[in-house]
Amino acid sequence: MASAAPLPGYVYEHFLVTAPAPFVAHVEINRPRRLNAFARAVWLEFGRVFRQLSDDAEVRAVVLSGAGDRAFSAGLDVQAASQEGPLSGRLSGQGDVSVDPARTAKELRAHIEEFQDCISEMEKCEKPVICVLHGVSIGLAMDIACCADIRMCASNTRFAVKEVDIGLAADIGTLARLPKIVGSTSWVKDVCLSARDFSAQEALAVGLVSQVHEDKARTLAAALAMGKTLAEKSPVAVQGTKELLNYGRDHGTQESLRYTKVWNSVAVQARDVPSALMSPLRKKKPTFEKL
Amino acid sequence: MASAAPLPGYVYEHFLVTAPAPFVAHVEINRPRRLNAFARAVWLEFGRVFRQLSDDAEVRAVVLSGAGDRAFSAGLDVQAASQEGPLSGRLSGQGDVSVDPARTAKELRAHIEEFQDCISEMEKCEKPVICVLHGVSIGLAMDIACCADIRMCASNTRFAVKEVDIGLAADIGTLARLPKIVGSTSWVKDVCLSARDFSAQEALAVGLVSQVHEDKARTLAAALAMGKTLAEKSPVAVQGTKELLNYGRDHGTQESLRYTKVWNSVAVQARDVPSALMSPLRKKKPTFEKL
Amino acid sequence: MASAAPLPGYVYEHFLVTAPAPFVAHVEINRPRRLNAFARAVWLEFGRVFRQLSDDAEVRAVVLSGAGDRAFSAGLDVQAASQEGPLSGRLSGQGDVSVDPARTAKELRAHIEEFQDCISEMEKCEKPVICVLHGVSIGLAMDIACCADIRMCASNTRFAVKEVDIGLAADIGTLARLPKIVGSTSWVKDVCLSARDFSAQEALAVGLVSQVHEDKARTLAAALAMGKTLAEKSPVAVQGTKELLNYGRDHGTQESLRYTKVWNSVAVQARDVPSALMSPLRKKKPTFEKL
Amino acid sequence: MASAAPLPGYVYEHFLVTAPAPFVAHVEINRPRRLNAFARAVWLEFGRVFRQLSDDAEVRAVVLSGAGDRAFSAGLDVQAASQEGPLSGRLSGQGDVSVDPARTAKELRAHIEEFQDCISEMEKCEKPVICVLHGVSIGLAMDIACCADIRMCASNTRFAVKEVDIGLAADIGTLARLPKIVGSTSWVKDVCLSARDFSAQEALAVGLVSQVHEDKARTLAAALAMGKTLAEKSPVAVQGTKELLNYGRDHGTQESLRYTKVWNSVAVQARDVPSALMSPLRKKKPTFEKL
Amino acid sequence: MASAAPLPGYVYEHFLVTAPAPFVAHVEINRPRRLNAFARAVWLEFGRVFRQLSDDAEVRAVVLSGAGDRAFSAGLDVQAASQEGPLSGRLSGQGDVSVDPARTAKELRAHIEEFQDCISEMEKCEKPVICVLHGVSIGLAMDIACCADIRMCASNTRFAVKEVDIGLAADIGTLARLPKIVGSTSWVKDVCLSARDFSAQEALAVGLVSQVHEDKARTLAAALAMGKTLAEKSPVAVQGTKELLNYGRDHGTQESLRYTKVWNSVAVQARDVPSALMSPLRKKKPTFEKL
Amino acid sequence: MASAAPLPGYVYEHFLVTAPAPFVAHVEINRPRRLNAFARAVWLEFGRVFRQLSDDAEVRAVVLSGAGDRAFSAGLDVQAASQEGPLSGRLSGQGDVSVDPARTAKELRAHIEEFQDCISEMEKCEKPVICVLHGVSIGLAMDIACCADIRMCASNTRFAVKEVDIGLAADIGTLARLPKIVGSTSWVKDVCLSARDFSAQEALAVGLVSQVHEDKARTLAAALAMGKTLAEKSPVAVQGTKELLNYGRDHGTQESLRYTKVWNSVAVQARDVPSALMSPLRKKKPTFEKL
Repeated sequence: MASAAPLPGYVYEHFLVTAPAPFVAHVEINRPRRLNAFARAVWLEFGRVFRQLSDDAEVRAVVLSGAGDRAFSAGLDVQAASQEGPLSGRLSGQGDVSVDPARTAKELRAHIEEFQDCISEMEKCEKPVICVLHGVSIGLAMDIACCADIRMCASNTRFAVKEVDIGLAADIGTLARLPKIVGSTSWVKDVCLSARDFSAQEALAVGLVSQVHEDKARTLAAALAMGKTLAEKSPVAVQGTKELLNYGRDHGTQESLRYTKVWNSVAVQARDVPSALMSPLRKKKPTFEKL
Repeated sequence: MASAAPLPGYVYEHFLVTAPAPFVAHVEINRPRRLNAFARAVWLEFGRVFRQLSDDAEVRAVVLSGAGDRAFSAGLDVQAASQEGPLSGRLSGQGDVSVDPARTAKELRAHIEEFQDCISEMEKCEKPVICVLHGVSIGLAMDIACCADIRMCASNTRFAVKEVDIGLAADIGTLARLPKIVGSTSWVKDVCLSARDFSAQEALAVGLVSQVHEDKARTLAAALAMGKTLAEKSPVAVQGTKELLNYGRDHGTQESLRYTKVWNSVAVQARDVPSALMSPLRKKKPTFEKL
Repeated sequence: MASAAPLPGYVYEHFLVTAPAPFVAHVEINRPRRLNAFARAVWLEFGRVFRQLSDDAEVRAVVLSGAGDRAFSAGLDVQAASQEGPLSGRLSGQGDVSVDPARTAKELRAHIEEFQDCISEMEKCEKPVICVLHGVSIGLAMDIACCADIRMCASNTRFAVKEVDIGLAADIGTLARLPKIVGSTSWVKDVCLSARDFSAQEALAVGLVSQVHEDKARTLAAALAMGKTLAEKSPVAVQGTKELLNYGRDHGTQESLRYTKVWNSVAVQARDVPSALMSPLRKKKPTFEKL
Repeated sequence: MASAAPLPGYVYEHFLVTAPAPFVAHVEINRPRRLNAFARAVWLEFGRVFRQLSDDAEVRAVVLSGAGDRAFSAGLDVQAASQEGPLSGRLSGQGDVSVDPARTAKELRAHIEEFQDCISEMEKCEKPVICVLHGVSIGLAMDIACCADIRMCASNTRFAVKEVDIGLAADIGTLARLPKIVGSTSWVKDVCLSARDFSAQEALAVGLVSQVHEDKARTLAAALAMGKTLAEKSPVAVQGTKELLNYGRDHGTQESLRYTKVWNSVAVQARDVPSALMSPLRKKKPTFEKL
Repeated sequence: MASAAPLPGYVYEHFLVTAPAPFVAHVEINRPRRLNAFARAVWLEFGRVFRQLSDDAEVRAVVLSGAGDRAFSAGLDVQAASQEGPLSGRLSGQGDVSVDPARTAKELRAHIEEFQDCISEMEKCEKPVICVLHGVSIGLAMDIACCADIRMCASNTRFAVKEVDIGLAADIGTLARLPKIVGSTSWVKDVCLSARDFSAQEALAVGLVSQVHEDKARTLAAALAMGKTLAEKSPVAVQGTKELLNYGRDHGTQESLRYTKVWNSVAVQARDVPSALMSPLRKKKPTFEKL
Repeated sequence: MASAAPLPGYVYEHFLVTAPAPFVAHVEINRPRRLNAFARAVWLEFGRVFRQLSDDAEVRAVVLSGAGDRAFSAGLDVQAASQEGPLSGRLSGQGDVSVDPARTAKELRAHIEEFQDCISEMEKCEKPVICVLHGVSIGLAMDIACCADIRMCASNTRFAVKEVDIGLAADIGTLARLPKIVGSTSWVKDVCLSARDFSAQEALAVGLVSQVHEDKARTLAAALAMGKTLAEKSPVAVQGTKELLNYGRDHGTQESLRYTKVWNSVAVQARDVPSALMSPLRKKKPTFEKL
C-alpha cells in the first residue's frame, strides 16, 4: 500500500496517513521495529490523527492497520512505560513511599484519563473506521480495535486481552466496550479473565471480527475496498448511521428513538436525499457535497 | 393460508387479519403489487392493527407476514413519499426555501415521531409477535422486523438496511434496536453503513433470525406452529415474559430485578399457576382464562 | 472429584465445598436424589456460601457443579414450594381469600427479593465463577447459570427456561440477564416464551456456554483446569476484570470508562504489577499476596 | 375572561378554549358545578385539547385555569369513577372475585396508562403552559399542575395531594414529578404522605408556585400577561427552551449538553435569530414566522 | 417519652424502641453519654432495627430521635474507629506498610459498603421515618438524617457535614443524597466543602427540615403527632407513596410513570380503597388491615 | 484586589490570575470595556485557564469574578459573533444558501461542542470554584455561573437568562444545569422562558446564590475569605467532596453510593486523615501535602 499518496496535512512521527482512494484515508501505525507498541508520545499522536480525520471534509472513511508483517500492535510499550509517567517507578517495583496512595491515585487518574481520551478519539471520529488486524494484536491492540466500527483480520492474527498477565485490569476501554460488541458474555469473560490467546477463526465465530482473510495484504485490500464503498455513499447518511448506532448501543430504545428523531430532523434536509434518489433515474453514481 | 377465517373486528385496507388457530392472529401486509411497501396510510393502519391485537383477549400470539411471493416488504413506498408529507418537496430535489430549516425540522420531527410510534406499536403489543420474512425485505422491513419478538425467514430472503443508499440514516428503529438484538457489532455496522444485501444464511449465522426454512410456505407454517404453541400456554406467563425481556434489554440488572419483583408480585396471583402445575396430574392440557 | 479436601470453614447442609487446587474452590449442589432442586433452605445457604467465598482470601476462583449424574439442577423444588412460603396455598389452587391482593403482593415482593438476593450473591462474589452444567438444567438452573462468569456444559445437558410452563414469568434473574449475555434476541425470546428444551450444541452455537465436553467428568475437569489457571494469576487483576466487565454490561461507555479510571487508580498500586512484569525475567511464575 | 373570542377549531364539551391575545390560548376546565372534577370523558378530552394546541401554529403560549369561583379542580370525579372503568366495582367494596388479581392488574395497567398519557399531554405540549390555581386544587389537580411549566395561584388556593386519604398512592404523575420540581424533599414527603391541606403561601415558600395573587381574577390576569409576553418572543427559542429544560430535569449533565447541541444545530438556523438581533436597531418589536 | 411501652420483640443494646401510639414506633439512639456517636456495633444494630421495623406489620410509622439533651448524634465514634476496623491503624497515623494500597482498598470497600448498607436500611424501610434532630447533629448524623423521609429539628440544633474537617469526603450517603433533597446546590456545596456549622433556621430556610420547634421535647411531640397521623391512614397508600417518591427522585419521568403503573396495578386492589372512601359516609375513621 | 501577586505561570490575554492567599487563585475576566463579554478567543482561553488550575498543585480553591464595576459579564460578544464562526453569516440575516442545512448543522454542532467544552472546564476543574457576580450578569454569564460550585453576588446584580431574546434556546449549559441547582422549577421556567431580569434578592430567595453582599468589593472579600477557608482544609477531602456531589447530582442513589465507595477506598489512605485528626491534640492547624 506504500504507493498511495500521502494525505496532505497529516505529518506525524508514528503514523503514516495516505489517500488510497478518493475520500478514503489509510492510517498505519508506523513503529514496526517495536511491533507497533504504544508509548505515551504514540497515543497522544493517535488522538490527534483521529481528531484531524474527524474534522477533515476530504475524508469519508478510514482504514487503520499496523505497519510490518509481524504485528498490528503489541500493545503498551512496556519498556517506555517503565521509564515515563506515573507507572515508571511502580513497574520497577520500587514505588515512591514519600507519596501517599491518595496522591498517587490522583496522578494515575489523570494519566488513565488522558490515555483513554486519546484512544476514544477513534470511536468519536465521525467517519467510519475499519480496523485491519494481523499478527500480534494484544493488550492495547484490543482496546483500539474495540473503538473501530468494523473489524477484519488476517488468518494469522494472534489476539489476547493480555492485561491480567501484567497484573492489571484493562483500563483503556476493552472491558467497557467488549461486553457490548460481542454476543457471548461467557466467551468475553473467558478471554478477559484468562488473558489467553485466541485465533482469527475464534474471533470470527464470536463476532468480534466480521471478516477473516488469508493474509494481511488480502485483509487490507478488502478493508480498502469497503472503505471505498463507504466513501462513495452520502456522508450525511454514513456519518449519521455511525452516530446513531453508537448511541443505540449505550441507551434504551425510547431514548434512542428520541435522539434519532432530533438528529434526522436536520439530516434529511441535506441535498443528499434527492441526489441519491435521482441517481438511478439519471443512471450515474450520485455525488455528494463536502461534509 | 387463505383458508383461515378472518379475525372478527379487524377490518383494514392494507392488512388482512385471520385466525388460523385458537388465540393465534395472522397479520398479512396486503399490498403485494406494491411489494408490500408502506405509504403513510399503511403505517397508520399498522399501528392501529397492533394496538387492537394488544387489547384483544382472544389473541395470545401474532404472526406477521407479507402477502405475495416476492416480498415481505420493499420498505418505504418512495413514490408515495415523494407526493405526501414533509419529504415530498425534498425528494424531488426542490425543497421549499420559503420555510427556514428550524421550521422544517419541527415538521420533520412530528413526521418521524408519528412514523416511529406506529411501528413501535408492534413492540409494545403485549402478545408475542413472530415475524416471517421472505423475498425482498429491505429498509423499513428491517425496522419492522426489529420490533418483532422472534424472526424466521425463507431461504430466498434478501435483507438490506437500505437507507444509506437513499441518503438517510435509518430513523424508524433499526439503528436503535439492531445493536441490542444481534451479538456482533462489527457485522451490524457493516450492513448498516454499507447498505449491502445479506442472505438468510447470514442472518441466521449472526442471530438476526432464529430459523431459516426452505420457502415462504414452510416458514409461515413453522411460525404458525410456534404461534399455536405459545397460544396454548398461560397468557399471564407469556406476556409477562415478553415484558420482562424487553425491560431487561434496556435496563441494568438491578433495575430489572426490581421491576421483575413488582411485576410478578401480582402476576403470580393468577390462577394460571395452579392450573399449569396441576395439569400433568390431571393428564390434560391446562386451559387459561382470558387476558 | 470426591478426593479433593474439604475447604476449611465451609460447613453446609446442601452444598459440598472442596479445595481441588490452591486458591480454587469447588462448590457442589448436593441434593442429587432431589435432582439438586432448590427449596428455600437451599437458596438461603447458596447465598451464604457465595458471600463466604467472596470474602475468603484463600479463594481466587470458584467452580460450581451439581452432584450426581442426572442433573445440574431441576430448578425449584416444587413440592417444597407447595408447602412453604407465600406460594404454598397458591400452588394448590386454593389461595387465601381473606387476604387482599395488595397484601399478598407485599408478601410476594419480600419473598422474591430474598430469593433474588440469594442467587445474585454468586454474581456479586468478587472471584470468577465457572458453572459446569450437565443433565437436567432447567428453570432456576438457568437463573443460576446466568449469574456465573463462564459457562461450560456436558453434551448431554438438557436446558430449558421452564417457568412459562408453570404459569410464571421467570423472576430470579434469567429474563434480566439473558438478553445481555447471549447475542441473538430472537433465540432468547424463542426459548423463554416457549419453555422448550434446548441442547448443549444449541447453547454453544448461540454463545450461552463457551465450551461443550463429552460428559460431566470431562467438563468438570476442564472447569477445574481453568479455575486453576485463573487462581495462579494476580487476584487484583482478575477480580478487577470481573468487576469492570459486569459494570460495562450495565452502563454506557463513558460511565464505564469513568468508573474504570477510579477503580484502577488504586488497583495499579498493587505489588502485583511489578511481580507480574518481573516474573519472565526471573523465569519463574509470579506469586501474589493474599486478597 | 369570558369576552375573549373562542379559538377556532377547538370544540370540546368539558373545556372552553379562547384566544385572549395573539398566539395565546386560554383553556378553561369547564365543569364548575362538579368543581371541575375529572371523569374519564374529561381526561380523554384534556389529552386531545393539548395535542391540538401542541400542533397549532397559531398558539405560542397556553394558560390553563378552572371555571367558576370555587375550584381549579377537585380532582377525580369519584362518583363517576365508582360507575365507570376498572375501579367501579372496587370503589363500592364489592370487587369481582370471578377475575383473578393478575387479570384485574392488566385491566388496571391499561386504565392507569391511558389516564397518565392524557394528563402527560400537557407536559408534552410544545408550547409553554401556565397553570392558574385557585380554590379547591386537590388530588388530580396536583398531577395536572405538576405537568405545567409555570404555576401561579390565588391566595385562597387550598392544595392537597389527597390520594392517601382514599387509600391510594397518587399514580397520575404527582409522585413522579413533584420531587424534581420542588426543592425540599422533606416538605414533599410531608404533604404527600399526610394528604394534608397546604396554602398558597406555603406553596410559594417551597417554590411549587412562583407567584401568588390576591384572587383568581388577578392571578389569571397575571398569567395572561405572562402568556402574552411569551407569545411575542421567538417560538423557536421558547419551545426549544421548554424542551431542553424538561430534558435537563430528567438527564445527567453530559447527556443534556449532547442533546442540546444536536437540537440547536438546526434551531439556530431559524430566521428568528437575525430578526431578534436586528429588532433593537430597527426600533421595533421583532415578528416571527409561524411554527 | 420514657413512659411509652417498649415495642415487643425489639431488644437492642444501643437503641430503645417503644410504641407511643398504635402502629407508631419510636426509635431512640441510646448512647447519650457518648453523644449518641456510632461505633461499628451501633451501625450494625441500626441496620437490624430498621429491617425489623420494615417487616413488622404492627408498625406503620417510625420516629427516630437521639437520647439525652445534648445531641441527636455526634456522628462517628472516632475513638472507637481508631481501635477497630480498617481505619484503626490509619487514624493513628501509622498505617500498615506491609499491605499494598490495592489490598487495603479492598478492605476499605468492604468496610464502607457494610456501613452504607446499614444506614441505607432506614431509607429502605417501607414505613415512613420522621427524624427528630436536636443539639449536636454532625457528620454521620447528617448521613442518617438524609435517609429519613421527613426531618424536623429543635431550634438549638447544630448541624454540620463535618467530614472534610477530618480529612475525608463523607461516604455514608450525605453527598449522594443531599443534592437531591435540598433545592440550592450553592448552599449544599457551601456546607459540604467548608464543614461549617449551620443552624436550625438555616436548615428550614433551605428546606433540609420542614419544621423547627422550640426545643427537643416539642419537636419530638410534633413528630409523634405526625407519626400518629400517618399510622391512622391506609398503610398500602402510605407505603406506596414512600416507594414511589423515592423512585421518582432517582428516575426520569417516563420511567417513574411506568413503575407507578405496575405498582398500583395491584396496590389499588387493596380493600383500603373502599374502606377509605366509605368512611365519610359511615362517619367513622376507616380501619385498615395489617400490612 | 489588584494588590495580590500574579499567580506564576498564568499568562493570559483576557484573564488576570492572581494569588491573594496561599493555595487560593483569583481569576478575573478582564475585558471590562466590553463588559467582560466573550468572543471565541475568550472562551478558548477560559477553558485553558481552568484546565491549568485543575492540574496545579499550588491551587486548592478558585474565586472567579469580572473586572470593572459594571458587569460580571454581558455574555456573548454579539459583535464578535457576527464576524466570526458559523453564526457570522446567520446573524446578519443573510445565511449561506449554497450550503444545505445538514452541512450547516455539522458545523454548528462542532462550534457548540467546542464552546460547551470550554465552559464545562470550570465544572470539571477539580478545585472548588466560587463565583462572584455583580452588575450585568446575563446570558453566557449564567451558563458560567451554573458551572461554579458556590455562587455569591452583589446586591446590584442584574441577572437574566437572556438567550430567548436573541431567538435562541441557551445551549452552553444553563438549561442542562439550572433545573438541578435551583429547587423551584416553576421559577426556573419563568426566567428561562421569559428572559426577564431578576435581582440578587430573588436569586437568593430561590437558592441560585447562597450569599448576597452590599457591593462587589464586599462580595469579593467574602468569596476570598471562603476560598482561604477551603484552601486550608485537606485537598483530598475538599476535591473528593466536589467530585462526589457532582456525581450525586447526576446519578441515582445506589449508583452514587457505589462510586463513593470506590473513590474513598483510596482517598482515605491519604495522610490527611491522621493529620486532620491529630491537629486538635497538637493544638495547631493541620497542614496537608500537595495534591
